[in-house]
Amino acid sequence: MDLQLLRNWHQRISQELDSVVWMYSRLYRKVPRFRRPELLQAARAGSHLCLLYVKCAFVLTRDGRPVKIQRTIFSECFYVLGLDELGRATGESRYQREALTMMEAIVHWVREDPSELGRPQLSGAVPHDSMAVPMMLLNLVDQLSEGDEEAASRFSEVGSWAAKRILTHVQRNGTAVLENVSEDGKELPGCLGRQQNPGHALEAGWFLLRYAQRQKDSTLLSQAVEKFVKQPFHSGWDPEYGGLFAFQDVDGLCPTQLEWKMKLWWPHTEAMIAFLMGFAETRDRELLDLFNQMAKYTFDKVHLKAGL
Amino acid sequence: MDLQLLRNWHQRISQELDSVVWMYSRLYRKVPRFRRPELLQAARAGSHLCLLYVKCAFVLTRDGRPVKIQRTIFSECFYVLGLDELGRATGESRYQREALTMMEAIVHWVREDPSELGRPQLSGAVPHDSMAVPMMLLNLVDQLSEGDEEAASRFSEVGSWAAKRILTHVQRNGTAVLENVSEDGKELPGCLGRQQNPGHALEAGWFLLRYAQRQKDSTLLSQAVEKFVKQPFHSGWDPEYGGLFAFQDVDGLCPTQLEWKMKLWWPHTEAMIAFLMGFAETRDRELLDLFNQMAKYTFDKVHLKAGL
Repeated sequence: MDLQLLRNWHQRISQELDSVVWMYSRLYRKVPRFRRPELLQAARAGSHLCLLYVKCAFVLTRDGRPVKIQRTIFSECFYVLGLDELGRATGESRYQREALTMMEAIVHWVREDPSELGRPQLSGAVPHDSMAVPMMLLNLVDQLSEGDEEAASRFSEVGSWAAKRILTHVQRNGTAVLENVSEDGKELPGCLGRQQNPGHALEAGWFLLRYAQRQKDSTLLSQAVEKFVKQPFHSGWDPEYGGLFAFQDVDGLCPTQLEWKMKLWWPHTEAMIAFLMGFAETRDRELLDLFNQMAKYTFDKVHLKAGL
Repeated sequence: MDLQLLRNWHQRISQELDSVVWMYSRLYRKVPRFRRPELLQAARAGSHLCLLYVKCAFVLTRDGRPVKIQRTIFSECFYVLGLDELGRATGESRYQREALTMMEAIVHWVREDPSELGRPQLSGAVPHDSMAVPMMLLNLVDQLSEGDEEAASRFSEVGSWAAKRILTHVQRNGTAVLENVSEDGKELPGCLGRQQNPGHALEAGWFLLRYAQRQKDSTLLSQAVEKFVKQPFHSGWDPEYGGLFAFQDVDGLCPTQLEWKMKLWWPHTEAMIAFLMGFAETRDRELLDLFNQMAKYTFDKVHLKAGL
């Protein structure tokens, strides 16, 4: 019955994929029916991201002129993901060399000196660890390390640091994942400290699951499933209308984000990935049931239009 | 009957004001029952806004250290409003001198050189006039000019420039107010050009009304009422559930702002001010009816908790 359930969803999602291509290079490389030259061509075209000095633009015009630059690491992280994958799909090592150079810059900004990012250091700003940062680093280490022992060894310490940082976001005696904690892993006062993002916690869950899988670390695997997959689902699911809240306040106060109770598409995608990945690793039936519940809700509520 | 309707609302709003003080200095100066020393004391304390080089902080800690600085003019504009009003309430001219110095800096950033604001000039960014900028300038001119002929004359040309700029946001043969237009007053392509914000248009409406009133410009007064007060109400009011949408797309597409169909408190406040001010100027009964409809909706939906 489990197998049949998974087959049904596999068939349905395969059909949807025909209309939603989220990463041309990866599809080209991993999914035989997407091994089409026009896909790789589009990926190459997309790779000409505008590098300004050491920074990537966040928004470009169609002809490549920068519209917006963020003073964070995130555009650069997606640049690394895209270029590394394109290097793998095309077999051209220059893309991966560029990805590695940028990765070193990102690690430098995060762990040593953020000044090149251009954010002013303000005396009243509370130093804190935003979970997005170690999450992205762990995801990049995962991408760069696939089948590449040299990269795996080069970024092994970064991966272990990032996984440990993510775990410090489990607070309140293990009952909640908080988006922002102090740099030494303690809860912060105020709405910054109380902020929760269920979809983000679930995303951290599957990043940790992949890491635990590669490290063959069963303790981390179980922490990832319990604290970052099951728990954020149970606390973040709207009991009245279904779906995951965009933001929550751990004390039940009203979050400051206007969209907090909206049901955005992406947390549900992260949840489906986390549940399936967790089920594949543990064969825990609860995770399959959660996947089924989440997939039913998502495909019922989110309407994808034909594209490709 | 009109008078009775206004009296009823006046009584109700007076009660609410006991719990919502939005500007201590102004209340102290203008409303006899708020002429209390603790209010002026609180206003003085609040005036110690943190000036960093030439910029104001957008967020401060309780003890005055900067948490966030925006690369826009808006924190500085509210600094000017606050300091000028505090100068009037206390009779201490140093506050107004500081306000005037900052005002000159703002005008310089807007009309000559924005580089001190610290925003990078990007080659792909579309130069455009965001209605918020001339609106704020017009509002500052109004504040600084009250009963001060020297300031009125010093900023007279700025006021006239700002009013003209606001009028360029009336587009599509006079049927819509668009938030962003080109620097020569034309509609811009894309979602930036299609963006509408009914509450903001209504706010521009009452800024223009005050300006028209002072300038004794009956043509501008009628434009303000028709294009910036009545029209944004009619196109921005939700026919299904009532209330003003936060954002709209002039072609009826889905706006990019997640909160676009939420009913925020502030557009309704701006609308009530605009309708009452318009009615006071024109005695147009439709404006009083709109005020009544908006006030009913607002006081029914927005719950104010006792504070002061």
